[in-house]
Formats: sequence, C-alpha cells, structure tokens
Amino acid sequence: MKLTKFIPLAAGLALLPALGFAQEVDMTPPNEEIGYIFTTFMFLVTGFLVFWMAAGFTMLEAGLVRQKNTATQLMKNMGLFSIAAIMYYLIGYNLMYPGDGWTISSTVGEDVFGYLGAFGWTSLEPVGLADTETDLTYASVGSDFFFQLMFCATTASIVSGTLAERIKLWPFLLFVVVLTGLIYPIQASWKWGGGFLAPDVEGVTDFLDFAGSTVVHSVGGWAALAGALILGPRIGKYGKDGSVHPIPGSNLPLATLGTFILWLGWFGFNGGSQLYMDTAGNVADISRIMANTNTAAAGGALAALILTKVLYSKPDLTMVLNGALAGLVAITAEPLTPSLGMATVIGAIGGVIVVFAVPFLDKLKIDDVVGAIPVHLFAGIWGTIAVVFTNPDASLLVQLKSIVIVGVFVFVVSAIVWFILKATMGIRVSEEEEVNGLDIGELGMEAYPEFAKG
Amino acid sequence: MKLTKFIPLAAGLALLPALGFAQEVDMTPPNEEIGYIFTTFMFLVTGFLVFWMAAGFTMLEAGLVRQKNTATQLMKNMGLFSIAAIMYYLIGYNLMYPGDGWTISSTVGEDVFGYLGAFGWTSLEPVGLADTETDLTYASVGSDFFFQLMFCATTASIVSGTLAERIKLWPFLLFVVVLTGLIYPIQASWKWGGGFLAPDVEGVTDFLDFAGSTVVHSVGGWAALAGALILGPRIGKYGKDGSVHPIPGSNLPLATLGTFILWLGWFGFNGGSQLYMDTAGNVADISRIMANTNTAAAGGALAALILTKVLYSKPDLTMVLNGALAGLVAITAEPLTPSLGMATVIGAIGGVIVVFAVPFLDKLKIDDVVGAIPVHLFAGIWGTIAVVFTNPDASLLVQLKSIVIVGVFVFVVSAIVWFILKATMGIRVSEEEEVNGLDIGELGMEAYPEFAKG
Amino acid sequence: MKLTKFIPLAAGLALLPALGFAQEVDMTPPNEEIGYIFTTFMFLVTGFLVFWMAAGFTMLEAGLVRQKNTATQLMKNMGLFSIAAIMYYLIGYNLMYPGDGWTISSTVGEDVFGYLGAFGWTSLEPVGLADTETDLTYASVGSDFFFQLMFCATTASIVSGTLAERIKLWPFLLFVVVLTGLIYPIQASWKWGGGFLAPDVEGVTDFLDFAGSTVVHSVGGWAALAGALILGPRIGKYGKDGSVHPIPGSNLPLATLGTFILWLGWFGFNGGSQLYMDTAGNVADISRIMANTNTAAAGGALAALILTKVLYSKPDLTMVLNGALAGLVAITAEPLTPSLGMATVIGAIGGVIVVFAVPFLDKLKIDDVVGAIPVHLFAGIWGTIAVVFTNPDASLLVQLKSIVIVGVFVFVVSAIVWFILKATMGIRVSEEEEVNGLDIGELGMEAYPEFAKG
Repeated sequence: MKLTKFIPLAAGLALLPALGFAQEVDMTPPNEEIGYIFTTFMFLVTGFLVFWMAAGFTMLEAGLVRQKNTATQLMKNMGLFSIAAIMYYLIGYNLMYPGDGWTISSTVGEDVFGYLGAFGWTSLEPVGLADTETDLTYASVGSDFFFQLMFCATTASIVSGTLAERIKLWPFLLFVVVLTGLIYPIQASWKWGGGFLAPDVEGVTDFLDFAGSTVVHSVGGWAALAGALILGPRIGKYGKDGSVHPIPGSNLPLATLGTFILWLGWFGFNGGSQLYMDTAGNVADISRIMANTNTAAAGGALAALILTKVLYSKPDLTMVLNGALAGLVAITAEPLTPSLGMATVIGAIGGVIVVFAVPFLDKLKIDDVVGAIPVHLFAGIWGTIAVVFTNPDASLLVQLKSIVIVGVFVFVVSAIVWFILKATMGIRVSEEEEVNGLDIGELGMEAYPEFAKG
Repeated sequence: MKLTKFIPLAAGLALLPALGFAQEVDMTPPNEEIGYIFTTFMFLVTGFLVFWMAAGFTMLEAGLVRQKNTATQLMKNMGLFSIAAIMYYLIGYNLMYPGDGWTISSTVGEDVFGYLGAFGWTSLEPVGLADTETDLTYASVGSDFFFQLMFCATTASIVSGTLAERIKLWPFLLFVVVLTGLIYPIQASWKWGGGFLAPDVEGVTDFLDFAGSTVVHSVGGWAALAGALILGPRIGKYGKDGSVHPIPGSNLPLATLGTFILWLGWFGFNGGSQLYMDTAGNVADISRIMANTNTAAAGGALAALILTKVLYSKPDLTMVLNGALAGLVAITAEPLTPSLGMATVIGAIGGVIVVFAVPFLDKLKIDDVVGAIPVHLFAGIWGTIAVVFTNPDASLLVQLKSIVIVGVFVFVVSAIVWFILKATMGIRVSEEEEVNGLDIGELGMEAYPEFAKG
Repeated sequence: MKLTKFIPLAAGLALLPALGFAQEVDMTPPNEEIGYIFTTFMFLVTGFLVFWMAAGFTMLEAGLVRQKNTATQLMKNMGLFSIAAIMYYLIGYNLMYPGDGWTISSTVGEDVFGYLGAFGWTSLEPVGLADTETDLTYASVGSDFFFQLMFCATTASIVSGTLAERIKLWPFLLFVVVLTGLIYPIQASWKWGGGFLAPDVEGVTDFLDFAGSTVVHSVGGWAALAGALILGPRIGKYGKDGSVHPIPGSNLPLATLGTFILWLGWFGFNGGSQLYMDTAGNVADISRIMANTNTAAAGGALAALILTKVLYSKPDLTMVLNGALAGLVAITAEPLTPSLGMATVIGAIGGVIVVFAVPFLDKLKIDDVVGAIPVHLFAGIWGTIAVVFTNPDASLLVQLKSIVIVGVFVFVVSAIVWFILKATMGIRVSEEEEVNGLDIGELGMEAYPEFAKG
C-alpha cells in the first residue's frame, strides 16, 4: 500500500499505540531499529533497480531511432537523468513531500493553498545518525530521497522517446527542468505527499495508485502527448494522402536489451513502493508484488505476440517489447491485490491496448517514435481503472476523477511550457538537420561512425 | 568510514569482553520473523539476478547468430521467458513442489505414483499476511515462486541458443510450453520437490545437485541435443567432404555483454539456492558460494584462453566466453564445499571441456549455434560428478545414476515432442527462408535495417 | 543446502517452542548475529554491483575503440577480470590485509618491514560456520573477499582502456598479473590493511580515502600513464606538425551503456565501503553515500555538457560520459560527509577537469584512448583533495603526501614492469597489425564480421 510519506516520518511514534500488535510475539516490527535497517536497505536496493530503468529507456530509445539520431538520443537521456537528479534535490523532493507545509496551508484554507507543497533544498540526515528513538520510526531520509528521485527521472525518460528524431536538444532539456522540478513533484504531492488526492478524512475513499500508473507513467505520457502535438510528426512519417510510413528502429538488440532492463528495474519500481519491509507481512507483500509484476509483463508480451500474429500474420518484435512494457505499466497502479491470474490478465490487456493504440495514434497523425504514449499513457489509464477489479477499497469514480485531474494539469502546463519554448528558442530542428540527422546537427558526431549505411 | 579489516577479523576474540553482549543470545535464527524477512528478501534479490540471466542469454545469442536471424532470436527469447512465467504459474510450480501430493501417492505405492507431482495453479499468500506463527517458519511463497520460476525459464533459454538460425518460431515456442510446464517441473520435483532423488530415508545417500548442474543446465542441454539431432544442422555448416565451416557471430560485444550478465546473474542462481539466510551460518555459506562461483567462472575463462592459444596459436573470444559459462555451470552442482582453489580447478576443467567439446560436436555434425550443449550439458555433467571431490556426503554412483535418469527422461520426452511437432506443423524453416534469414521469413523485419551488410 | 520446501513449511509450528527470544534486545547492533547477517548481505549486494562495473568498463571501452580493435578489447577485459580474481585469491587478499603480519614486522622495526603485507592463499570460513560468538563480530570472510576482489579488478579495467588499440594482448595480461597480485594489494594495505597510511597512533591525522579515489582509481590511472608513456601513441593520432587527429569511438550506444553500468555499480563501490550495515546509523550513512554518489555523477555530466557547449558550441557526448565518471571518481574519496549540494559541486568540478584534461594530455602527446587518465587519475586526485572541504578530520598535507606516496610507488613500479615487458617480449603490435586491426592480428576474428565498414 502506497502510504503518504509524511505520516510515518512525522507521526510514527504517535500512531504506534493504535495498531494493536499481538502481545506474545512482537511482530510489527520485531524491533524498530531492525525494521529501520530493513526498510532503508530495501529502498536502496529497489532504488538502484529503478535507477537502472534510466539505462533501459536509453537503450530502448537508442534502438528504436534511426542511426543518424542515436547519439543525440543518448545525450538527451544522459542529460535528462542528470537534470532530474539535481532539480529533484533543489526543489522537487520538498515540493512533493511538504509535510508541515500542508498543515500551514490548511490553517489558511486548504482549498487554495493545498495544491502546492513547500519549496526548499533536500537535506539528508546527519552523518552517524544518532540512535534516538524518533529517528528509527521509519527509514532514512537519504534512502527515501534516493528511491523517489528515480521515479521523478522516469517521467522525463518517457517524454524523450516520443519526441525523438526532431526535437532540439536544449529546449528538450529545459522542458525536463520544469517537468522534474515542478510538474511531476506538484501533482505527485497531491497523492503521495498527503495532498487532496490522498485520504483527508477517515471514511473518504482514496485515489489508489500504488506505484504510479497515473502519478508517474501517465504524467510522462501526457507531457509527451502535449509535446508531440505541438512539435508535429517527423518528415516523411505521414503522406499527404493519409498514408503512414513506418520508420523502423535501427538496432533491435539494443531495444530488446532496454526492455529487459526496464522489466528488471520494475521489480524495484513496484516492489519498493510497498514503502515498508519491517515485518513479515510487508516482505510477503513485496514478494507478491514482484511476482505479479513479472507475470503482468509476460502477459503483455504474449498478448502482443499472439495478437500481431493474428492481425498481421507475422508477429511484430517492437510490439512485443512494448506489450511487455504496457503490461508493466498496467500492473503498476495495483500490483499487490491481484492474484497471479488477474495480474496476467491485467498485463495482457495492456499489451492489447498497445497493439491497437499505435495505429490509432498514427491515424491521428500523432508521431510517437517509440510508442511511449500507448505504453505509458493508455496502459497507465487502463491500469489505474483496473484497480477497481481487485481492490475493494477502490472507487471507479475516484479513479476516473483523479486520472482526469492529473491529466488536465499535466497536459495543460506541459503545453504552455512547450509553447513558450517554441515561441522563444524554437523546439524543432531545421528540415535540413532533420534529414541529415540530429547527430551531425546537434552534436557534430555520429553514433556509429565506422559502420556503412545500408 | 573505511576501517582496516584486520581489527575485527583478527582481534575479535580479544574485543569481545569489551562489547558486553548478552550471554544467552539465541542464534539460529535469532528471531523467526527476522529470519523470515531475511530469507524472503534474499529470494527476491537473488531472484531478480536470475531473471537478469534471461537478458544475458538473449544478448549472448543475439551476438552469436548472424545479422539476418537476430530479430527472430530476440523474439524467441522474449517469448520463451513469457511462456515460462505463465506455464510455471499455471502448472509448473505445483507440479515441482507437490507437498502432500507425495504423501497421497505414497499410500498407494510410491514406486508407481511418486514420479509426478500435483497439478494446480500457483496461489500466493494473502495480502497483508496474517501474523500467525505458522506463516513465519520459512519465507514467503511469493518470493520462493519468484525465485524458482527464473530457474525454469533458464532451461528454455539454453534450448533457444542451440537451435537458432533454422527453427521456426512457433513450434519452438510450443516446445517451450511443454518444457517449462511439464518436463522441467516433473524432473525437478524428483530432487527438489521431495521425490525419489531426494533423501527418502535417514541414512540413504542423496543425489547432490546444489543449484542444478543436472536439474537445470543438463535439462536444457538434453532438450537442445534432442532438438539439434531432429532439426539437423544449418545449411552450409558441414561440407559433404566432412569439412566444418565456422559461422562467426555477428556482434561480439553483445555476446560478451551477455556473458557478463550471466556471470552476474549466477551469483543469484547459486547463492539463492542456499534457500535460507536466517542465520550467520547461512549468510556465510552464501558468501562462500558467491566467491566460489566467481572464481570458477574466472578459471573457466582463463583455461579456455590459454588452451585455445596453445591449440590454435591465437586465442578464441567465443571460446573464452563459453569457458566462463562452463566454469559457472560446473560449480553449480556444489558451490559451497569447495575451497577457492578447488572451485577454480572445477571451473577450469569446465573451460577445458568446452574447448574440446565444440569441435567434437562438429565431428558428429551436431550443429549447436552458441555452444550451449558443451556448456550446459557437458560441463553440467562434469560439475555433477565433481561434487564427490569436495562433498563427503556425495556418492559417485548416486550422482551418475541420477545424471542418467534425468538425461534419459528429458532426452526421450523432448525427442517425442520434437517428433510430434515435426510431423504436425514442421519445425524447420524452408531452405529459401534459411538463406534469406529468419527475420524476413518469420517476422518481416530486420534487426539492423540501416546497417550495410559487409 | 537445497532442501525440499515442504519440510520447513509444514513442520515450523512444532519447532516454535524451542526458540525463546531475549526480552530486552540490545540496539547497536541490535543483536550481533543480525548485524553480521546485515553487513554480510550488504557486502554481497554491493559486491555484485562492483562486479557489474567490469561489464561497464568492457562496454565503455568496446564502444570507444574502433571496430577493428573491438574483439581484442573484449578479450582483454574478460582476461583481466579473470586474472584479477585468481591473483587476488592467490596472494592479493592476504597481502592487502596482513593482520598479524604487521605485528611481526613491527617487532623487527616497522620502518623497514611495515610496507608489505603477508603472502598466503585466501581461505574462506568453513562450511556451516559454527555459531560461536567469535565468528559473529563482523561479517563473513567470504563476503569481504568477494567485495574487495572487485575493487582490485577495477584498477586493471582502467589500464586496459588507456592502452587500447596498440598494446599486445599477452604482455597486457602479464602486467595485470603484477598489478592485481602485487601493486594494488601492497599499496592498498598501507591504507586499508592497517599500514603506515592508516592511523597508527591515537591523535595522528589519518589519510582519508573512503572508497578509493587514490587507493583504487589513481592507482589504475598511474599504471595507465606509465604504460601510455612507454607504449607511445597510436599511429595517426598526432601529426608531425603538432596536430591532433581525433579518433572517434565506433559504437556510442555501447559506451553509453557502459557509463550507465558504471554509474549503477558505483552505488555498490561507495556504499559498500561503509563496511558496516549493522545499525540504523550505518544504513543511514550508506543512504547518504548513495544519494551523494548519484548527484556527483549528475553534476559531472551536466558540467561537461554545459562546458563543451560553451567551448565548442556543440556538446560532446563522450565528454559527458566521462564527465559523469569523473564526478563518480571525485566523490569516491569522501561520499559521506558532503551535503547533496557539495557532492554536486565536487562532481561537477570532476567533470570540468575532464573537459580540460583531455586536450591537455593530447598536447603532451599522451594517447589515452578512452580518457581514463583524466577520469581516474586527475579526478581521483581532485576528489582526494576535496575531502578537506567537508571532513574536518582531513588534513590537506596528509592527503597530498599520501597521493604522492601512492603515485610514486605505482608509477615507478609500473614503469619498471612495462620496461621489462617491452625489453623481453615487446608490448606493441607491429605497425601493419595496428593498421589492419588487432582483432585480426591478435585473435584472427572480427567483432562485427557481417557489418560493412563505412
């Protein structure tokens, strides 16, 4: 269960008497310091898995763009992760977890002020943390920051795939500054920072989004969609007669490697979102989550494999890769409550969505180079809705309402930022540069300088 | 803080009085819930490492096939892992760990019924596991399923490498359904599910195969051998005059990356097979296992490096990669009892086996594209025998008997399945498709569409 | 031990009454056995991350050399890691941690004998470690060996990058034998084995190098520098008129993948160097370390991105990759005490150093193929000095003195070894082989045999 962070950090001590543990065997946690070590180490391990997803997105995108744009795509991914790391430190983390910031706004009227967290640099716990009891109620701030930062970076990775092969390097990186410093943390605070999408009052139904089908993946998807609409499709992708010209990726082993990396990283993404590993119950839940995450990816891949075989007589490898990813996105909103069978079905439907959504976007002339909008936005919405099938605490209305609120906010703000960037510095490379390749135009170098073009 | 090591290691005894430990600390395990968390988390971490091996096999195979067959090889690996995940959930896991299933068959006569487990879907422990005492005696079912599933998938990865570049996609995937749903789990239940290769009676010598040189690797090898014999060699591999024409891999960096991934994953494969991390003794054993696993791989790689230099005057990179893998397979049957020196020797002999087995298979006109039969079958047999050199509980006769039983079962059943597939849908692509490449024939796409052929 | 699963699951209840927990659990560590398990498991997890860096160096170097030298570069990396594993087992580990060896030399006069450890093969703790109290004071020897071995291998990986594309395979591997068996362990023992750079007397200021900016990275850098000077630059790199001809890497996606792998592995490199995870304070420190390590890499990458844009109008991808690595090297000497902000600055200055150091080396006609000397030596020195800005226990004089002592020792001994190798077997391939590529000359094979040269 994805709890808001500020509760355990601020109020952990106070909550303890309310929980009612068994008297004979002290179960939950067996010892607060041991629980602290377990949860902290869990955040570090799952955090490095989510970090690894940045490499996965990079390889996926490098494999799915054309040779001539590969080095630029690598540069964008190195840049976006680095920017996310620094922006999330400078303002993002505190904005997302305002803690007492909410309380302050409440006194003035939550309607107005409750939608934005508190600014301020992230500071970690002091070296050689004193072993006082108050410090031991949850996990180290450093581990939580490390883990949450990786989620923030994920949203930017999603955008870079969609807009590849025609967006300029620098405006893209400036957009990432705003996305990771403001857009992602603000909307994430609404759910995970104790804001208005988190449970305010006892008895009010909560928006449920365990590891972020909506809060992370759809955010990247909406920002990408806004960018794709404003940027326009690549030259040659859509004919004037309405025809669609597929532009195959240049290096499918890299794209497949990227998918495997993402699949591996997702065990951390969803598993770590349990947020606690201090009890047998929590670690058992993490186990369920990882098993469900795995089978949802398998379901998505197999659905796309079989469906593309049926539809096109030959199966499509990039659809299978995206099918696996869509299965992963779909299970992200609720990886704990489904059975293995339900998780497989939820993932498989994600794979089906991708197979139909890719040509649907093409029909709308929305050019998404790697299929990130079908995977992260459409399967993300599906996964958020699917929570109601396995979690009795979910309400379809609340889920839909929250999807829309997050979507409108992210889409509108992203569109404004894209328009400002377009009006000021321009966001699209020249036609000549696009034809010759962004690697020459943006970087003056090639990704594969010694390999002859076929 | 970087402290010198010799203080705790050498002076531990002297320091003890100063530290003031409790005199009676219950050591094994210190607390059942803590032991449960440790072992469960260990399964998850080692499980994701074994998952990562699926990516390793994929990269190894993608690097060792020709360009024109690369996308199909990627597709096979995505497909086989996904199928393994779902088949192991649907029937494999319960078949492999029948639990009371064995008891039932015992009452009717174990000779007849004791060779097959119990069918049934896998179900995980409930969400928010009740903190009842009975749940805390081992580890979460979800973590065990997650870990064991990855072993099942490994067998299928082995087969896909041997049969590359001429087998049709769909019959291959159907074979994987049978291999991961039935063949692997049934024979694994004999040893790891409490069947007739596990110790039945106190005092009877057990078949020893710690992490599966026989139960996993040779199984993949036998299934691959049956397939290679029935499928036949690739066009152009063997001349009518008995000549052998090497077909080099198209992308050696990918093959090397795959080997490193497998090496890393093997720490989980062997380490996690300790099955417990609830005590100091168990975690120390896991440490021994990981150190031995590493040195066995190094021994295998160096043996192949030096031997190919001596035999052919220039060392062979693919032999060195396979030498490392053979070292890993060889140590898998017993990674705990050997000293570092013995582990190095066991691994090195694995590397030697590969260097001689590859041309030996070629003499028999058995075409194994990536060398999986030498690595997984031959070095697997060697490793299973080598247990007797370091583990006093092992019996050469029992080891040999078990190798033969598993081998005959897997080879015969696999051959039957391959024959049925051949007779019904055919397993080999047309000569024209093989020459033009499976990527065009099976998928209608290319792995490297923009790279000119050399 | 591979036990059948149904035994512990079924019989757990019966075992419970025998356990008897202590009523008051001691906090720091909460229980010595639990602390032992935590620290040991931490070494295994961080150790496999550092192992993964071997793959990172391999991919980085394979991507930054030309096609025709790629297979040889792969072979060197497989070979060097395997040699490091075996040499460190045979003599390195005991040489580095002499334990009582120091005591013996002290009695005869530490000035003379205190600079060298004790020879002897590594032996791990016995199987099924007896649960005596003396064994539980720290962590398992196997896990410590596993972790420390990976550091030793890192130094050799650094050398292989600098000397690529013209050094013969076998003399390189022989150098690695000496580097990993003698040079690295001897100087590492001075600091980490309780030698004369470790604190001898209470009150004397210690040389501070947390995870080895000097002890690991500068060692690789000095050995590489000695080799580069003796080996000379590649043909065609420097014109007679003083011109510098850039030789771009052949596969930038591989180089980027390698950088991401190294970044990931560095969480283990620095995090594991905390050496303890038995208390909340230690795991909180590890969290700080990982967060600081991440932000330093981001700082280095962004500094190189912006600086190359400013200097050359277009940013340079390989500089950004090396900038991230330089940030990682720079933070390695002290990843714990800096704030996130200071860590970012320390890393960013590492990135700046790289951007200026690469052309500076070219001006000196020192040909470093991958930029390893700027990254590991120059940024390593910077990081070692930077300790004084955040750690009040550091002394600039002691830091500088130690950098010089280590540098002189490693550079001189390395140069002697390189000269001996040059005089006896020769270290440089023939001009013809260098032009045609080392892959044909050293291995008789190609990395990308089917790809046309551009």
